[in-house]
Amino acid sequence: MKTYDFFAPTRVLFGPGQLHQLHTLPMPGKKAMIVTSNGQSTIRNGSLETTKNELTQAGCAFALFNQVSANPLKETVEQGAQFARDNQCDFVVALGGGSVMDAAKNMAMLASQPTNDLWDFVFTENGKKQNIKNPVLPWIAITTSAGTGSEVDAAGVITNPETKEKIGVGGFEGMFATYAIVDPELMKTVPPKFTAYQGFDALFHSLEGYISNRHNPMADMVQRAAIENIGAYLPRAVTDGSDMEARTAVAFANTMSGYSMDVSACTSEHSMEHAMSAYHPSLPHGAGLIMISVEYFTYWINRHVCDERFIDMAKFLGKTDASDPMDFITALKALQKACGVDDLKMSDYGIEKSEALTLAKNARATMGGLFLCDPAEMPEADCAGIYERSWK
Amino acid sequence: MKTYDFFAPTRVLFGPGQLHQLHTLPMPGKKAMIVTSNGQSTIRNGSLETTKNELTQAGCAFALFNQVSANPLKETVEQGAQFARDNQCDFVVALGGGSVMDAAKNMAMLASQPTNDLWDFVFTENGKKQNIKNPVLPWIAITTSAGTGSEVDAAGVITNPETKEKIGVGGFEGMFATYAIVDPELMKTVPPKFTAYQGFDALFHSLEGYISNRHNPMADMVQRAAIENIGAYLPRAVTDGSDMEARTAVAFANTMSGYSMDVSACTSEHSMEHAMSAYHPSLPHGAGLIMISVEYFTYWINRHVCDERFIDMAKFLGKTDASDPMDFITALKALQKACGVDDLKMSDYGIEKSEALTLAKNARATMGGLFLCDPAEMPEADCAGIYERSWK
Ligand SMILES: [Zn+2]
Ligand SMILES: [Zn+2]
Repeated sequence: MKTYDFFAPTRVLFGPGQLHQLHTLPMPGKKAMIVTSNGQSTIRNGSLETTKNELTQAGCAFALFNQVSANPLKETVEQGAQFARDNQCDFVVALGGGSVMDAAKNMAMLASQPTNDLWDFVFTENGKKQNIKNPVLPWIAITTSAGTGSEVDAAGVITNPETKEKIGVGGFEGMFATYAIVDPELMKTVPPKFTAYQGFDALFHSLEGYISNRHNPMADMVQRAAIENIGAYLPRAVTDGSDMEARTAVAFANTMSGYSMDVSACTSEHSMEHAMSAYHPSLPHGAGLIMISVEYFTYWINRHVCDERFIDMAKFLGKTDASDPMDFITALKALQKACGVDDLKMSDYGIEKSEALTLAKNARATMGGLFLCDPAEMPEADCAGIYERSWK
Repeated sequence: MKTYDFFAPTRVLFGPGQLHQLHTLPMPGKKAMIVTSNGQSTIRNGSLETTKNELTQAGCAFALFNQVSANPLKETVEQGAQFARDNQCDFVVALGGGSVMDAAKNMAMLASQPTNDLWDFVFTENGKKQNIKNPVLPWIAITTSAGTGSEVDAAGVITNPETKEKIGVGGFEGMFATYAIVDPELMKTVPPKFTAYQGFDALFHSLEGYISNRHNPMADMVQRAAIENIGAYLPRAVTDGSDMEARTAVAFANTMSGYSMDVSACTSEHSMEHAMSAYHPSLPHGAGLIMISVEYFTYWINRHVCDERFIDMAKFLGKTDASDPMDFITALKALQKACGVDDLKMSDYGIEKSEALTLAKNARATMGGLFLCDPAEMPEADCAGIYERSWK
C-alpha cells in the first residue's frame, strides 16, 4: 500500500528543557484543569511546580485533579470531567505518562458534553455510539514518560471494569492536543523497570505498524526512526536514567511511534495485551507486550507473510548483516536481555495458562479492529496458541 | 541542537489516485476559488476537470482564477485576492505546482484583509510589516509537481519586481493548507527537464536543512527519507515520467522536504538562488540551485564545519561506503549526471560573471535570515566567490 492519510495537528515542542517554553505559547483558555496521576512523582521531581509556574506566567488560573491511576478507569474520566465543569476549567493540561494523557483527553472530550457517561460515546457493542454534541475542550500534553505516544494521537485507552473492556476511547475530530511538550528532562526519574516497559511499548507500536497491512512510506519512515533509536538507546536509558542523550533518543522514538499509530496502525499484539491487562489490571501494558512478543512475531515469521519486513526490522535494531527473518527475533531477544526484561512471567501477575482461549476471544471481541491490520488472518486457535507458548 | 518545534497541521492524503478522495473530506467552505497556472497542463491532463467534479460532488460551487505564472508576482496575488472577493469565494483550492500553491496561499491570506497590497503584510525593509487583521481563508493544496513542498508549509515565494525582492511571504498562523492532496498520478505529465529541476529543489531543501545549524532529530528523519528517495528514484522519474513507483517516491520525498522547512530551515543556498532568479526571472528555481550547488557544498566541506553530516548525506545518496565529505560531492555530481542536469549554464539565462557581488549583496539583503541558519558564517566575498566559481 502506497497511500496514506496523515493528520497530526498537534504542535510538538521537543527536547530537554522545553517545559520552560510553555508560557511563551498562546494559551487555549483561561483556566486549566491540571491532570496528574495519584502518585507523588510530579511533586517529587518538581514538574508539577514548574507547570503551575508556567501557567501562572502565561496568565492562566488552574485547578488540580490528581486522581488518575495506571490503566485509567471510565469512572475516573467521568470524575475528571465533572471536576472540570465544577471548576469552570476551559482547557486541560495533562502532566504525566500515557495513563494520564489518555484519561485527560477523554476528560476534555466528556467535560463539554451534556451527559457524563463516557460509554455514551463508545462505539463497541457495549457503548451507546453517540457522536459528540459539543467541541472538545482544548488540551495540552506534557509527557513524563516515553511509552504510549498518546501526546500526538486522538484516542485514549480506558478500562471499563463492568464490561471487561480495555479499549481506545475517543479519537474524535478535535481530540488531538493543541500542544505536546516532550521534555526528556521530565523522564529522568522514571525507574529502570518502567523505562524498559514503556520503551518496549513504543517499540511495539512501530514494529507492529511496520508489519501491518497499513504500511506506507510515511509510516515506514517514522517506524524506522523509532526502532533504530530504541534499539540503540533504550538499554542506556534503562541503565542510567540520567543519560540525557539516551532519554532524548527514546523520547523521540516514542513520539514517532505515536505518529505511526496516526498514519498506520498497531496489529493484534496490542489487542492481545489489552485482554491480558483487562483481566489482570496489575499487569503493566509494556510488560504484557514483552511477554507475548517473541512468540507473536515468531508466529508471523513462520507464516512467511512479510519476510522482507522482518529483515528490515532486524537491520533497524542494529543487526546490519541480517538476511533471515529470524534474525529479527535474535535482535529482539538481545534487546530484551540488555534491558533486563527477558524473563517476565505471566504467572507472576496471576495469569493461568488455561486462560489462553478466553483471552483470545476477549482480544478479538473488544479490539477486533487491529486484527484487520494484521499482515494476514490469524485464526482464534493460533491466537490462543501464542498465549500458551508465551506462558511461563 | 536536540530541540525542535514541529507544527504541520495540514491533513495530507498521499498516493496515486488520492485526488478522487477529495469529495469525501468535509469542505471548509461553500464556494472555492480554484487557482491554476496560466498554462494548459491541468486542462490537458484532466486534473482541472477532476477537481471540478470532486468539488461538485462535495456540494461546493467554484470560480476559476487561471492566471498564475512561474515565479509568481505580487500583482498576481493581489488580482487573485480581489477575484476571490468579487466572486464571494470562501475558500481556495490551489491546483498546480509550487508557484500556484505559493500564490494561492497568499491570495487566501490577502482576500480576507481590509487592504489589497500584499507588501502591507511583508516584514522586510520594503514591507509595511502589518499583522493580518482577519483570519486567512481556508485553502486546499492539490500539488501537480514534486518540488517546493509548499503543500505542507505556511509561506509562499512571491516576486516584487519593483523592489527586486523574491522572498517568502506569509507564514502566518492559519496559512497552512487544510488538506494537501499529493497524488503522483497528477505528476505523470511533468516534462523530464522540470521533473529534474523540481526534484533537485526538493533535494536541496533537505540537503541544506541537514547541514544547517537548525538540525534536530525530527528534521534529520525527514531529510534522510527525502535524500534517500530522491537519490534512488529521481533518475527513473526523469527517464520515464509514467514510472509510478518512481513518481510516488519522489513525491513523498518532496513532502518530507516540506516538513524539513517546517521543523528546520534552508540555508543560504536558497537565498543565493532567489537573488539569481529575482534578477533573471526566466531562470527556474531548481535550475538555479543546481548551477551553484557543487561549489556551494564544496565551500562548506572546505570549511570543515560539519564533515560528518556530509558523510551521512553521501550515504543517503547511495554511496554506502562513504568515508570522506567529498564523497558527497561525487554522489551529487553523479545524480545530476543521471538526471541530465550536470551541464546547466548561467550564461544561458543571461547571468554575467560580473554580477557575482551584486547577487551576493541581494541574497543577504532580501533573504538574510537563511544565512543565520548556515553551519558557520559566510562572508560576502565567499558568497560572491561561489557564484564566480559556478559560472559558465
Ligand atoms: Zn501500546
Ligand atoms: Zn526551493
